[in-house]
Amino acid sequence: MLRIAMLGAGRVGQVHARSISEHPDAELVWVCDPIEAAATALASKYGAQWSLDPEDAFADPSIDAVVIGTPTNTHIEMLRRAVDADKRVLLEKPIDLDLAKIDAAWAEIQHRAPFVMLGFCRRFDPSFQEVKERVAKGEIGMVRALRITSRDPQPPLAAYLSVSGGMFKDMTIHDFDMARYQLGDIVEVQAMGSDNGLDDFREAKDHAQAIIVMRAASGALATIVNSRTCAYGYDQRLEVYGDLGSLEAGNWTPTTVRANTATETEAAGPILGFFLERYMPAFKAEFDEFVRAVTEEREPAVGFADGRAALVLAEAANESVATGRVVRVG
Amino acid sequence: MLRIAMLGAGRVGQVHARSISEHPDAELVWVCDPIEAAATALASKYGAQWSLDPEDAFADPSIDAVVIGTPTNTHIEMLRRAVDADKRVLLEKPIDLDLAKIDAAWAEIQHRAPFVMLGFCRRFDPSFQEVKERVAKGEIGMVRALRITSRDPQPPLAAYLSVSGGMFKDMTIHDFDMARYQLGDIVEVQAMGSDNGLDDFREAKDHAQAIIVMRAASGALATIVNSRTCAYGYDQRLEVYGDLGSLEAGNWTPTTVRANTATETEAAGPILGFFLERYMPAFKAEFDEFVRAVTEEREPAVGFADGRAALVLAEAANESVATGRVVRVG
Amino acid sequence: MLRIAMLGAGRVGQVHARSISEHPDAELVWVCDPIEAAATALASKYGAQWSLDPEDAFADPSIDAVVIGTPTNTHIEMLRRAVDADKRVLLEKPIDLDLAKIDAAWAEIQHRAPFVMLGFCRRFDPSFQEVKERVAKGEIGMVRALRITSRDPQPPLAAYLSVSGGMFKDMTIHDFDMARYQLGDIVEVQAMGSDNGLDDFREAKDHAQAIIVMRAASGALATIVNSRTCAYGYDQRLEVYGDLGSLEAGNWTPTTVRANTATETEAAGPILGFFLERYMPAFKAEFDEFVRAVTEEREPAVGFADGRAALVLAEAANESVATGRVVRVG
Amino acid sequence: MLRIAMLGAGRVGQVHARSISEHPDAELVWVCDPIEAAATALASKYGAQWSLDPEDAFADPSIDAVVIGTPTNTHIEMLRRAVDADKRVLLEKPIDLDLAKIDAAWAEIQHRAPFVMLGFCRRFDPSFQEVKERVAKGEIGMVRALRITSRDPQPPLAAYLSVSGGMFKDMTIHDFDMARYQLGDIVEVQAMGSDNGLDDFREAKDHAQAIIVMRAASGALATIVNSRTCAYGYDQRLEVYGDLGSLEAGNWTPTTVRANTATETEAAGPILGFFLERYMPAFKAEFDEFVRAVTEEREPAVGFADGRAALVLAEAANESVATGRVVRVG
Repeated sequence: MLRIAMLGAGRVGQVHARSISEHPDAELVWVCDPIEAAATALASKYGAQWSLDPEDAFADPSIDAVVIGTPTNTHIEMLRRAVDADKRVLLEKPIDLDLAKIDAAWAEIQHRAPFVMLGFCRRFDPSFQEVKERVAKGEIGMVRALRITSRDPQPPLAAYLSVSGGMFKDMTIHDFDMARYQLGDIVEVQAMGSDNGLDDFREAKDHAQAIIVMRAASGALATIVNSRTCAYGYDQRLEVYGDLGSLEAGNWTPTTVRANTATETEAAGPILGFFLERYMPAFKAEFDEFVRAVTEEREPAVGFADGRAALVLAEAANESVATGRVVRVG
Repeated sequence: MLRIAMLGAGRVGQVHARSISEHPDAELVWVCDPIEAAATALASKYGAQWSLDPEDAFADPSIDAVVIGTPTNTHIEMLRRAVDADKRVLLEKPIDLDLAKIDAAWAEIQHRAPFVMLGFCRRFDPSFQEVKERVAKGEIGMVRALRITSRDPQPPLAAYLSVSGGMFKDMTIHDFDMARYQLGDIVEVQAMGSDNGLDDFREAKDHAQAIIVMRAASGALATIVNSRTCAYGYDQRLEVYGDLGSLEAGNWTPTTVRANTATETEAAGPILGFFLERYMPAFKAEFDEFVRAVTEEREPAVGFADGRAALVLAEAANESVATGRVVRVG
Repeated sequence: MLRIAMLGAGRVGQVHARSISEHPDAELVWVCDPIEAAATALASKYGAQWSLDPEDAFADPSIDAVVIGTPTNTHIEMLRRAVDADKRVLLEKPIDLDLAKIDAAWAEIQHRAPFVMLGFCRRFDPSFQEVKERVAKGEIGMVRALRITSRDPQPPLAAYLSVSGGMFKDMTIHDFDMARYQLGDIVEVQAMGSDNGLDDFREAKDHAQAIIVMRAASGALATIVNSRTCAYGYDQRLEVYGDLGSLEAGNWTPTTVRANTATETEAAGPILGFFLERYMPAFKAEFDEFVRAVTEEREPAVGFADGRAALVLAEAANESVATGRVVRVG
Repeated sequence: MLRIAMLGAGRVGQVHARSISEHPDAELVWVCDPIEAAATALASKYGAQWSLDPEDAFADPSIDAVVIGTPTNTHIEMLRRAVDADKRVLLEKPIDLDLAKIDAAWAEIQHRAPFVMLGFCRRFDPSFQEVKERVAKGEIGMVRALRITSRDPQPPLAAYLSVSGGMFKDMTIHDFDMARYQLGDIVEVQAMGSDNGLDDFREAKDHAQAIIVMRAASGALATIVNSRTCAYGYDQRLEVYGDLGSLEAGNWTPTTVRANTATETEAAGPILGFFLERYMPAFKAEFDEFVRAVTEEREPAVGFADGRAALVLAEAANESVATGRVVRVG
């Protein structure tokens, strides 16, 4: 039984707490959050202890592992303290918004060979995994191209935009990781964005939509199509294209009902609303990988280096938008 | 070049005239219809001669073949005269509404070994043909069941209902033939109908919808689901089900456009409106089979006996509705 | 907190035990099964007590409710004893194979106004529910027809066939209930079956496939297409057809992946394997309805009378196959 | 009746000849091609006169219009001579590979206000047209993005590659025009290509695949995904994405058959093979627009300026690949 402390009781903390509570080999022991109402609500829901101070969890020798779901700007400090306390770590993305800080942190902690798994939950989406597995079996031959469509249903609040680090580090970071998951290393990045003439995005100097084109070391090309809003739900699709064909992963609707009327046929309902609905199975599978990697004393499927690599791509995309040039990475 | 006379310039006559005119090895020479306006309009469209009297066509020694698209109650007479005049015949369904008259007619003409092809155009629908061909190749193993969905977009006029011979002989006749095309001989028929509480159908003692269940000699079961109206267009589908899987033939929409909005996703437009749109390629392929069978001096793919067999099933369905019993045929 | 005893630790007992354990307002207290290994395995999985004798559960005054998932031939006895012990009951289908026994049991217990919910889990399938709700809102106008496709992936063992009560009472019973759920009362039943020439079914005098046609009191017609085997998975679909259009509920595949190659496009994987995969959400929703109806002291959504009515249809279908006649019911 | 001369009897000439022959208001009078076998074969098929020298057509005062389907490097000369001879012109894309030559030609002929329609047949594809029309009606609100997928089934011969002008001018030219058709003027172009490590493309310094990203004057972003090969057929899709939803135009398969087996479900066949199959209805509609614009003495739906504008985008894409920079146009 893996004894876990959940750091951060916000939206993603609630998701992880549920995964932990439903996992047969894990137990939620602590919920730590500086906001007392959040900490107590989540702790009581799953019968855990709570604290305003993560130190209570780090100092508890019975705790095997921590899940870090605190605000991004505290990730590095939490990571350092967790590693110092000899806890296994599941860390939410992004590691940080600043590559230099990430590298400095790693330089400090790497001698301890810390166990750090990154929370790129989409790698655990059953459809995306099936695509990768079937590609690996050679079903579509040599891979030539990847296309990711990733659109959020609702834009973030304006207040969040200013601290988000920008679309590429905040939202596209998942897609950058997915590109690496499907294609391996990336060597070139090109990007174009638009604020769609919307004040919130213009003031934040951020994008309401963007397109990123990349070249992989393998020679394959990748396209990411991003939007901060989507009228019909949380649009999460990808296509891997190879010499012998393609594999496409699509969206889910809540039911299989199709309507036929005088004006339309085969009409399905809107797709699943947002990441909780779409990726809850992925969050569970991610947490299961965490438990198993810890238990089997092996590297997790997605590690610190993957978190860093995705941020490198985000920075390259920012540079490409700023300069209008292709940016080489790696 | 096959020289053709079109008998009947109504809706189906216009369809055949177009097929004839577009076929490289056929020529429309005569259009015969007792309604002068109809005959002249169709004839002039394709540069053919016209007459009120089919005898002009029968008596023309240059005519190789006639297409009979006159009202059902004249089919037998036209057939007899065409065979007497030594013309090849493409005869619209049904042969007649009365089995005894059909048998009497055949008894009279069979010594001439007449060439008579029946106009069951759906046998030439590319999707239904592909299903049959793939079944024949063993793709789904031993066939166990067939399901036909066949719904007209609009009910016939009340005036037509009273002379149509009833839904089974007028509309389901195509589906009976399709069942025989896909499964071979039928041995049992069971049927249930409903006038849906509508005056037109009640007064005509006819069905607004019906379900027919049949057993084939092979042991396979077949279901036909019929409706005289369909809000979303001309619903023409079938499923052949076997030990190793199934093959389904669906509907066409005029374009491939799919809409996604806040209330629906993957919405296609309504399906093709009626038989002209859906089965025009089938009518052309049917006519091509006619030309080729005549040219190659062989039996046509669908003959007089098939027209008779479909009518036998229609009569059995009528009897099943009347008696509430399964009716054995053949 | 509703304290529950699970009677029967077989396949369906395991399903219910999982629903109970995951429900926030219910607690699994007893698992009773005459097979010790089954009882202990299931009890220990969820931390419940176990017993070989259901009396331990009936006699436990802390128990609020029992879920009866024992063999069909013990249902009536379990029901009687549960009602005598003043427990709320969730009873698996069918109530019994013998209508006379069912009526006798009800005559005995009805004065206690027992709370008995029937385990027709498909009523709780989100897609079938959505169809019913949208129909109720008038989206497709007056309902004219229902079509149910229901095919099991694998046939039962020959040993089970002989005690199953026959396809109509064992398997189609769910579809009969679904027809009543979507259309209301049924007044006519017609059926045709086939053993597909297979020894197991022939010896059991049972069907490997069947088609049932019914007329509802509303005038709508219903078709059920059943098969005991299905190469591509557990085929569970329905179509409700009305004057303004239709609503179709389809199958689920485990992922959304579609493959495109030189020989095919848009190929999805096989559909979900069997009832655990397809209907697990329905089992959970069913159990939730049970808890809520008990808590709110109201009638459950599906009661004893519904269980009886489905059996009446099964008997009518048997009679129709035996006599070749339409059978009137109700 | 519009009397037409077809210049060029190659692949595209055959397509146009068929459209002309099937159009009720047009007549194919001349087929001109320097290869005698080609000219005579096509002319005899449709009962037209033939010549090795286009001058015979230009000098024929009965000729109203010419369709130019000769090799690209002769387009400008043919255009000039046709305008001099006062013929209406339907000109295949691209006008030429050299923008300077195009501008010089126009400078020469513009004083005659020539009627020149460009053969961008995809503008007449019913699905792409429906998307544009529904967008214009406001169905998806303000348009934010366009995505075009355009993949040829087979690469061109190596010999053709060297004279094709490169992928952007030869193949993507259609997609550039489609982007302008759907979004209006383009202001920025960014592109990335790959020879996929294939000798033919490397030697021709050309792309086996490419991705082009563009910004429209409206602010919308566009992506074109191109490939010179596609295992599953001629992949021609697009998505227009707006604030209220999206409209997607997909591919056609030759039939509607779907297969379900133990390994897959809903499998359709491969999509239509190449442009003749996919765009034949578009070619016919294009020719109909030509006839109607001539008859109604109005501008054609797609003119010389559109042909030039697409080439400007192709040159910008070439420059972007060469420099790794975004290129501003217009």
